[in-house]
Amino acid sequence: MSLSGKAAVTGVGDTDFTHDAPGKTILELQLQASLAALRDAGLHPRDIDGIVMPMGGGATVAEDFVTNLGIPDLRFSTTTPLGGAGAVAAVQCAAAAVATGLCRHVLMPLGRLGRSGQNQRIGARIQAMPQFRTVGEFESPMGAMAPAQFYAPMARRHMELYGTTSRQLAEIAVTTRRHAILNGNARMRQPLSIEDHQASRIIADPFHLFDCSLESDGACAVIVSAADVARDMAKPRVLVTGVAEGHPDSPSAITQRPDMTRVGLAKAAARAFAMAGVTPADIDVAEIYDCFTWVVLCQLEDMGFCGKGEGGAFVEGGALGLDGRLPVNTHGGLLSQAHMAGMNHVVELVRQLRGEAGAAQVRDAEVGLVTGYGDLGDGTIAIMARG
Amino acid sequence: MSLSGKAAVTGVGDTDFTHDAPGKTILELQLQASLAALRDAGLHPRDIDGIVMPMGGGATVAEDFVTNLGIPDLRFSTTTPLGGAGAVAAVQCAAAAVATGLCRHVLMPLGRLGRSGQNQRIGARIQAMPQFRTVGEFESPMGAMAPAQFYAPMARRHMELYGTTSRQLAEIAVTTRRHAILNGNARMRQPLSIEDHQASRIIADPFHLFDCSLESDGACAVIVSAADVARDMAKPRVLVTGVAEGHPDSPSAITQRPDMTRVGLAKAAARAFAMAGVTPADIDVAEIYDCFTWVVLCQLEDMGFCGKGEGGAFVEGGALGLDGRLPVNTHGGLLSQAHMAGMNHVVELVRQLRGEAGAAQVRDAEVGLVTGYGDLGDGTIAIMARG
Repeated sequence: MSLSGKAAVTGVGDTDFTHDAPGKTILELQLQASLAALRDAGLHPRDIDGIVMPMGGGATVAEDFVTNLGIPDLRFSTTTPLGGAGAVAAVQCAAAAVATGLCRHVLMPLGRLGRSGQNQRIGARIQAMPQFRTVGEFESPMGAMAPAQFYAPMARRHMELYGTTSRQLAEIAVTTRRHAILNGNARMRQPLSIEDHQASRIIADPFHLFDCSLESDGACAVIVSAADVARDMAKPRVLVTGVAEGHPDSPSAITQRPDMTRVGLAKAAARAFAMAGVTPADIDVAEIYDCFTWVVLCQLEDMGFCGKGEGGAFVEGGALGLDGRLPVNTHGGLLSQAHMAGMNHVVELVRQLRGEAGAAQVRDAEVGLVTGYGDLGDGTIAIMARG
Repeated sequence: MSLSGKAAVTGVGDTDFTHDAPGKTILELQLQASLAALRDAGLHPRDIDGIVMPMGGGATVAEDFVTNLGIPDLRFSTTTPLGGAGAVAAVQCAAAAVATGLCRHVLMPLGRLGRSGQNQRIGARIQAMPQFRTVGEFESPMGAMAPAQFYAPMARRHMELYGTTSRQLAEIAVTTRRHAILNGNARMRQPLSIEDHQASRIIADPFHLFDCSLESDGACAVIVSAADVARDMAKPRVLVTGVAEGHPDSPSAITQRPDMTRVGLAKAAARAFAMAGVTPADIDVAEIYDCFTWVVLCQLEDMGFCGKGEGGAFVEGGALGLDGRLPVNTHGGLLSQAHMAGMNHVVELVRQLRGEAGAAQVRDAEVGLVTGYGDLGDGTIAIMARG
């Protein structure tokens, strides 16, 4: 069987995104987002029979939700600890669970105290993650500790090979900020120009401050349901028509890869487009994981929106804006809405396809995609459509 | 769709089980078991396109296997961190992945340095696990730190309600030991009598020493493949005909449950039997998670092999032996083979159904089941059949 069209997103919810969620635990934030998603779906907690934990935070487990929401009959629980690729990996896993009848409604909560909590001492946190023990084996001994330091050489390599410029990366930051300004629940709502970007300090060459996303406090939750069940639910169905996961060559060491500018999404995207029966030309809106600006550019290439090395030119001139050739990160992304490990991208895609995106609504958005990107090269993608 | 018959176990492997794997990491042990499973399946590492980590150990991630085995195109990766229920939960997740065409061959490695490694200071380890922070919330403040202390009140409650005796629990330990003696890769191969059991010291009342499983070093690996692909592989297919997961009421606190003697498997088993289209009477061999003797007795009841409270009588007189009414834990189980968090139970069931179980082979074993049990009440079950 094909998984295409067998699952639908039926509920999305989020908390406020802040610098410092006062006195809240990750669990409290996740429960708040989960209740919002349940309300959105018109479901009661007892209807939930699957939980997939994307492990953006990793501090909570399925049993927390059984206990605190009062879920009487949980039938499926897994985690997708792929860092920023985990949110969309969770969509894939949940879709498989509902498609095979193991359960009907899968809750996927993701919460972070990225700004105020355990993520603040990022070097120590990163070193404690098993996947970073694995993936940084050539880079960590050279002093790379934080994500910016791991991604910087990939971006620099792209610049060397293809002539990509910092001003082109700035285009992504500026366009994303423009979208955040339209979003009442975005953290960064000051106007940003290419000149502001260029004048901001270097974090890890070639990344300026505004090439980097910002750790945040908050939570998102998404509910994936069996497509047939979703037909009779509160909101219009948003079908998962294509979904895939891919890993880079040589995942353990960025600098040892055959091609440092190519990530796991290159393998996943072709499969997802084939499953959905669409091509990049059919995509009305794209929520693309954006821990750093360059990562968006790289993914645009690896998905086939342009050729390898052409990403810099592709993003110029506001091409990623609401009226551009491909509206990208219409909520403000990780760069300017909040770093919710990509679950906010899933939420936004669903809102776009339902026509609920407010001031940032892309006209006639019918088919869209969302990507995840984690652990220095793992890629996930879900293509969704109104239906 | 029903998941029944859509997936098959096509490869199983294990290491030696020891007191102290000299100088080995969990990853090394898992790789060794994975290569054994690949050989058993007649597969090359490049054929693997899914990895589900049951997290019995939790120290390794999918990327470790991509890197060390050389897996070029991993398409699905999740974890099932349900403690001792995780191995069979991994079978369920892998079955859903291959049934929906996301991948063809899913590797599930589980390794432990339970005896020599990080598990030795069990109190500290338990307290560090998020699920134990959740599930022991009424018991931990009373001093419960180790699993024996959590399970003891469940067993004691069963004794009070139903007159179950320590000698009946001993029947399980003694029968399981008899099977271990037939197994060249079992740690505990000294004969054990009911009197030996009764004379052994109390660990946590009512558990004597021989009611408890023994932390061990080693690893197991299992490969689940799409059923149609499995038709042409090296070994006879072992189809997953039924599979389910269930959680107890009030998972957060054993002593607050409506019925302390009833676990999540009660919810899961009925679903798994219905999916497989069989009843307990059809089961030729059962590999039942046995972290403690009483847990076997409780699961026999919750699966419907006998009524609640009748487990003590059910297990008497060698009923769980190779020639008994229901051969159970034919490899020696966690109690006497090794604590491999139940993945050794999956391995053994597959060997039984292939007729590869050597001196412990159950005659004409065609349909069998394996259970997982973890986090103080989560239950998983897979029913398998030659086919």
